[in-house]
Amino acid sequence: MWSGRFSENPDALFESFSESLSFDRRLAPFDVQVNRAYAKALHRIGIFSDAEITLVLKHLDHIAIELEAGTFPFNRGDEDIHMALERRLTELAGAVGARIHTGRSRNDQVVTDMHLYLKTVNQEAQKALRALSETLIEKAEHHLTTVLPGYTHLQQAQPILLSHYLLAFFWAIQRFRQRLEENFVRLDVLPLGSGALAGSAFPIDRAFLASELGFTRVSPNSLDAVSFRDTFTEFSGVLTQISVLLSRLSEDWILWSSQEFGFLTLPDAFSTGSSMMPQKKNPDSLELIRGKAASNAGHLQALLTLEKGLPLSYNRDLQEDKLHIFSVIDNVLPALKIVRKIVATSTFHPEQMKEAVHLFTLATDAADYLVEKGLPFREAHVVVGQAVQKCVREKQNLTELTLEEWKTFSPLFEEDIFGWLTLAHSLERRNLPGGTGPKSVQTQLEQAKEQLRK
Amino acid sequence: MWSGRFSENPDALFESFSESLSFDRRLAPFDVQVNRAYAKALHRIGIFSDAEITLVLKHLDHIAIELEAGTFPFNRGDEDIHMALERRLTELAGAVGARIHTGRSRNDQVVTDMHLYLKTVNQEAQKALRALSETLIEKAEHHLTTVLPGYTHLQQAQPILLSHYLLAFFWAIQRFRQRLEENFVRLDVLPLGSGALAGSAFPIDRAFLASELGFTRVSPNSLDAVSFRDTFTEFSGVLTQISVLLSRLSEDWILWSSQEFGFLTLPDAFSTGSSMMPQKKNPDSLELIRGKAASNAGHLQALLTLEKGLPLSYNRDLQEDKLHIFSVIDNVLPALKIVRKIVATSTFHPEQMKEAVHLFTLATDAADYLVEKGLPFREAHVVVGQAVQKCVREKQNLTELTLEEWKTFSPLFEEDIFGWLTLAHSLERRNLPGGTGPKSVQTQLEQAKEQLRK
Amino acid sequence: MWSGRFSENPDALFESFSESLSFDRRLAPFDVQVNRAYAKALHRIGIFSDAEITLVLKHLDHIAIELEAGTFPFNRGDEDIHMALERRLTELAGAVGARIHTGRSRNDQVVTDMHLYLKTVNQEAQKALRALSETLIEKAEHHLTTVLPGYTHLQQAQPILLSHYLLAFFWAIQRFRQRLEENFVRLDVLPLGSGALAGSAFPIDRAFLASELGFTRVSPNSLDAVSFRDTFTEFSGVLTQISVLLSRLSEDWILWSSQEFGFLTLPDAFSTGSSMMPQKKNPDSLELIRGKAASNAGHLQALLTLEKGLPLSYNRDLQEDKLHIFSVIDNVLPALKIVRKIVATSTFHPEQMKEAVHLFTLATDAADYLVEKGLPFREAHVVVGQAVQKCVREKQNLTELTLEEWKTFSPLFEEDIFGWLTLAHSLERRNLPGGTGPKSVQTQLEQAKEQLRK
Amino acid sequence: MWSGRFSENPDALFESFSESLSFDRRLAPFDVQVNRAYAKALHRIGIFSDAEITLVLKHLDHIAIELEAGTFPFNRGDEDIHMALERRLTELAGAVGARIHTGRSRNDQVVTDMHLYLKTVNQEAQKALRALSETLIEKAEHHLTTVLPGYTHLQQAQPILLSHYLLAFFWAIQRFRQRLEENFVRLDVLPLGSGALAGSAFPIDRAFLASELGFTRVSPNSLDAVSFRDTFTEFSGVLTQISVLLSRLSEDWILWSSQEFGFLTLPDAFSTGSSMMPQKKNPDSLELIRGKAASNAGHLQALLTLEKGLPLSYNRDLQEDKLHIFSVIDNVLPALKIVRKIVATSTFHPEQMKEAVHLFTLATDAADYLVEKGLPFREAHVVVGQAVQKCVREKQNLTELTLEEWKTFSPLFEEDIFGWLTLAHSLERRNLPGGTGPKSVQTQLEQAKEQLRK
Repeated sequence: MWSGRFSENPDALFESFSESLSFDRRLAPFDVQVNRAYAKALHRIGIFSDAEITLVLKHLDHIAIELEAGTFPFNRGDEDIHMALERRLTELAGAVGARIHTGRSRNDQVVTDMHLYLKTVNQEAQKALRALSETLIEKAEHHLTTVLPGYTHLQQAQPILLSHYLLAFFWAIQRFRQRLEENFVRLDVLPLGSGALAGSAFPIDRAFLASELGFTRVSPNSLDAVSFRDTFTEFSGVLTQISVLLSRLSEDWILWSSQEFGFLTLPDAFSTGSSMMPQKKNPDSLELIRGKAASNAGHLQALLTLEKGLPLSYNRDLQEDKLHIFSVIDNVLPALKIVRKIVATSTFHPEQMKEAVHLFTLATDAADYLVEKGLPFREAHVVVGQAVQKCVREKQNLTELTLEEWKTFSPLFEEDIFGWLTLAHSLERRNLPGGTGPKSVQTQLEQAKEQLRK
Repeated sequence: MWSGRFSENPDALFESFSESLSFDRRLAPFDVQVNRAYAKALHRIGIFSDAEITLVLKHLDHIAIELEAGTFPFNRGDEDIHMALERRLTELAGAVGARIHTGRSRNDQVVTDMHLYLKTVNQEAQKALRALSETLIEKAEHHLTTVLPGYTHLQQAQPILLSHYLLAFFWAIQRFRQRLEENFVRLDVLPLGSGALAGSAFPIDRAFLASELGFTRVSPNSLDAVSFRDTFTEFSGVLTQISVLLSRLSEDWILWSSQEFGFLTLPDAFSTGSSMMPQKKNPDSLELIRGKAASNAGHLQALLTLEKGLPLSYNRDLQEDKLHIFSVIDNVLPALKIVRKIVATSTFHPEQMKEAVHLFTLATDAADYLVEKGLPFREAHVVVGQAVQKCVREKQNLTELTLEEWKTFSPLFEEDIFGWLTLAHSLERRNLPGGTGPKSVQTQLEQAKEQLRK
Repeated sequence: MWSGRFSENPDALFESFSESLSFDRRLAPFDVQVNRAYAKALHRIGIFSDAEITLVLKHLDHIAIELEAGTFPFNRGDEDIHMALERRLTELAGAVGARIHTGRSRNDQVVTDMHLYLKTVNQEAQKALRALSETLIEKAEHHLTTVLPGYTHLQQAQPILLSHYLLAFFWAIQRFRQRLEENFVRLDVLPLGSGALAGSAFPIDRAFLASELGFTRVSPNSLDAVSFRDTFTEFSGVLTQISVLLSRLSEDWILWSSQEFGFLTLPDAFSTGSSMMPQKKNPDSLELIRGKAASNAGHLQALLTLEKGLPLSYNRDLQEDKLHIFSVIDNVLPALKIVRKIVATSTFHPEQMKEAVHLFTLATDAADYLVEKGLPFREAHVVVGQAVQKCVREKQNLTELTLEEWKTFSPLFEEDIFGWLTLAHSLERRNLPGGTGPKSVQTQLEQAKEQLRK
Repeated sequence: MWSGRFSENPDALFESFSESLSFDRRLAPFDVQVNRAYAKALHRIGIFSDAEITLVLKHLDHIAIELEAGTFPFNRGDEDIHMALERRLTELAGAVGARIHTGRSRNDQVVTDMHLYLKTVNQEAQKALRALSETLIEKAEHHLTTVLPGYTHLQQAQPILLSHYLLAFFWAIQRFRQRLEENFVRLDVLPLGSGALAGSAFPIDRAFLASELGFTRVSPNSLDAVSFRDTFTEFSGVLTQISVLLSRLSEDWILWSSQEFGFLTLPDAFSTGSSMMPQKKNPDSLELIRGKAASNAGHLQALLTLEKGLPLSYNRDLQEDKLHIFSVIDNVLPALKIVRKIVATSTFHPEQMKEAVHLFTLATDAADYLVEKGLPFREAHVVVGQAVQKCVREKQNLTELTLEEWKTFSPLFEEDIFGWLTLAHSLERRNLPGGTGPKSVQTQLEQAKEQLRK
């Protein structure tokens, strides 16, 4: 389509190396939308007559149908989806089609397609986060008082409630919903009319285009519109961070479904077996989610590295951005749905969780007890640390110490220490806002629901 | 401080491998603030008496002075800044100091320090972006009608205005200002009171703490507060993307200050010479900014990789996050100021810029001319492409073609084609919103100023 | 195939999320090879009778033909290429096929396929590097004495020979050839027989397998064989670094083919036009090569992040590794061939190159002149720097200074200074080993040819 | 030192932004070495007289002493270590010092320093890998027959020997030792004499320099020598991959030292406590090693991104490379030593390991049993899978099934099945080369020792 100035055909290897149709094909429905709106705008400035615009829109409808039906006749020589559609339009409509690219460049066209596409995906991601939020709330309600060991450094730290654990993910997700909303505002800007870099030389009505395509604003500077990819990278970054969050949940749940932890049974529908070992039921779904978080980190890196090295404005290097953006999307959107289903259908084992809570996790409470009796915390910490050391040495549990033994560590210990050394007491003591105490978590649940109602 | 339970000292190599004081020292002023507020909160629940709180606050003031004066006596054994301060407080205040850590963990303490620190840095970055925005506007006003070649693929594409070019960066920067504001809201949440992971077991008044430390809200879930780093990574991501933007400006300006382009003379104050070649004046400042964008991409990657692999809640791996966050900050904040000064003090060469504009950049206008005469654009493109090919072959310029020669390519060419083949005409034709036409850019400048007034 | 233990089918979304057939299909020919060798090994220990092995091999031949012809009937439920082949074999051969997986796991099977595949690709890459090396030598010979400006910091530094420039890439490439050879040795190890992780429980003759499959050694530890991916990552790393090298060449050549430099005309066959601007001829091939280097860096990052988080031995996260390894291969192998063709068919413009050499690049020679006259270099540097400053201020060229003017900077300047200020003299002075002097480069060329003969 | 041509001092912020002395200071001893050798080379071509070279060498000795003693007087204006040393030499030796930079550039100087430094570090790393290899062998010998569960997907898979597990790391380490040796050969090349980019213009005897500095070869092309960083990046890549390996060991051992696994007690000397929870003993050393692997991945990424965007030859962006290379080194070298000590001093718990082995891990053996009785493996897998499913449903262990029950799944089961369902039998069946059978591991140990003797 641009061969006028050239005296040699593209090298075949270069042609296959540089094609983008295999991946930018997914922009086709958006490119049709853009063509439709743009044709109307050209009509308004007289490039198309009334008869011609009718014809163009009819053929674009036809192309849309072909695309949806999978019958669109792609050609070997189609460099990209934009060229394929223009070529097809010209085949169908003749010279009329050859007017569609007036005052337009693929540079502003592709970013317009991308804005439309990403707005759609952004909203899908928001919806999936909302669904996951609801499921976390339901599950938290169901396990409001289920106790399990809380970990730091993968060492048992203090008892916590499963509901509290699940809500931790809820709150993180709300931040991501917010980030997506904010990113949406930045995506909601029309680049079309920016031409190759300098702005269209035809007096296209950009406000009209924006309204036709559902954009709130038009981009204020044509060079800005075709050069930078920061809003796409931002979007990919938010999705990548979401996948890091899902990876952390996966990490925990893979541990929990091990024989050693035994806190959780994953649904068969999200597990797989081994080709060799008949007993195996593997948490492949969660492992893949974890693995795809690694892939996303790499894709984000590629986007940053890509853009970093470039002078203004468009450079062909940027073609690669779609590969990475699309991969991130394909890695995260299904993952969100899969995690929601796994959260909804996994079976927790409250008995095993409770039994697993090592009573050493009450050591902080024992130190706090001494604080209540007047000992400065740092000294109380040392006293209880020594008691723990003795227990470890003698393979005793902390709750097995007699009052007499406690007293060898500090005379402040009295009979009431034993009332402190229970899971229930430990949890009750953490009813401040944001704490894992049952009342606090109940309040938190209400806040979470309120948050979703907004 | 936690040695009660241990029977062996830390290995010396491990101690040096794991120390964080060399870098978390910058959190010291924030840690003092946190200690001060926390002490007051402990006083409110009776851990400190009236006399004791007075003492503690006095000693914290003293510590603040020592830190600022550089006389704070750090110890070999200080694991981190929190331990150093608690140790010092206890040295000064005795048993009273040993109460400061009641109901608190380093896990909630360090994230609180970080929230305070990052809020400060976030605002500094916003300020620097605003200053750079102002300078870009000033420079754009000064070069409102300076013409230079616009490039795509580093090939001359169409003539543009330097003001338009400078404003492209202005608009990108406004998106980053917005993203920092949004990130600030997420940083503006108090984690303190979350304890190690389960929430403090003492009825600390978290609303009071928030108000003392200038936070708008308290975190709703203790596990969330100590486990996730998404808001820090988001911040580092915004800064990294800012550095990618600065890198692209640098890329252009390095090109422009080459002998071959000659569009720009950098100030001596931001250039360096060669140890060997006496004639050299190198754009090192811009090269370093470009290089540090690469470093930032790596640091962001490290943050994502770090968090990705972890189960809940705190794991020591996370200590590394500060190294990367701090490096990104140290790479971007000065860079913003340096770029502002370079923009303000560089000398553009409008003459060279204008002379450099290759007249082939008017080829699109020639094609548009044919469109005006009724030829479909795609055909017009081919016609002009052939004219270009002839010129290239015969080493002619496009404007040197006679009307007769033009007519060999298309009979539609008339005498008025020559009026189209001027830079001024080409620019005038791009006065739609966002275009590089002089009127359009004038409007854009007003919008930009309006944006800053908001 | 592993459903015995399961009571529920895989979720459909999970199934599509976790499939790998769309990409591990490329391993099919290697999987057939592996099956063939493994069947023979099973025959040797009596799992297959003489009649059965004949049957199995016949059907495997048939499968190979189906695969090559594109008629292999893939099934919806095929999890991966290994399952697809086993399923097909069993369809064709019945119960005999159901014996093929005896004592084997997909874990050792897939790494064996990968070792075979990567050995092949490794050799292709070596061949492509060798071809590129030859073309660089040819081009260097052709441009043995072509002068162009050498740059540091993109500022003209000193004159160099184009041949010297081209040979710089030659030598870098030899290091990569060597790295690939070394990596090949590490790939040349048979993992098969490692089972899922613990080694096969059947007395498979691994030495026989190695010999059948063309491996030099067998892996010494089954856990090592199925757990680690370091040799694959190493290979991807070498390719990624090769693409960084190609990116640097591209960076230069894109600059050189700009209007401002004008050193180089790229072949039309490796350039593309613009959909909007008829005059454009863009260096898209080189831009894509540069862009794909960024992609590769991201893929390498993903590989490191993937493996980093895993306990031993196989975890499903590792499925993602193939996506990244294959992408790197597909980005680098054609790029090597394309760069070779571009080097071979681009037109350099020796006249423009020579004219472009700014005479300030002789400033080092002027300083060296003073050194010859006895002035310490550091002082000579200052003297010439001052002369340069005057010239810049007065828009003079360094060679335009009169002897009188030179003498104002140092009395040591004599008439013979003018003999020093020529490109030829400057080049002649750099005939030490590795220098850009014509004799030195001639010697270098001989060394380069010698290197290839080895 | 290069200010002759400049009329303005560097901006203060730019000066602090661009300084490298804070990190390239570690090159000082190598820079002294280089200066010493270079001075001798200058003496050989008459730049220094006999008296002068004596003086220069004396002052360089003095500088070396100052550096070692920490009394070297660094100046505010010292741009980098090379400038600092030249400045100091000139202070001490006067005009003689001002000759040292004759025919040399910081470009060839810094890469020479780096080659020397990296050769040293490379050998340290090799030594540390060897020491770790020895410790792994010792520990493996000590636990030759200790049984533990082997995992895939973190699900128990098959019983393995601890010795086999430890040797898996041994073999991986040997690959890294080999890669370091190969990298060493590429580092063992002298760049000095390459000047800024074009080669020195003085007839320096590069072979003499190489011999003085202990290099085997001289670099064949000056542009190659100062432009590319592939060998440094390769080295950083090998170290990064080593840290990924250490991270995987850490991942396992952190799991193993959890309450739930209980396979391992880490030495107190490599553990830390909690500021809040007195019972805690955290595996911080292993967590940091894991975290630093993430950091290294980021540093490697930065190196690739840095170099990717650059034209030839030296650009200031490259200054950043040292920051990343040094960080990787500082992260990996101590980690290797720490891991060795942890391997040497951790306490394994063979009893708990053995008890932890779930008897379902013998399911593959049950399937193999049926294979021995003539059933095709794929059918045997289904049969045993069903038996497993029943056991899971009825909370039975696989070894608790009666013969009658076994027979309901397949009539092929006989009394001898019970002999197959023991850990010892399972291990015995895996005595093929590379398998976890006790005899095979014994052989492997011999091979490992043999490997170290080489």
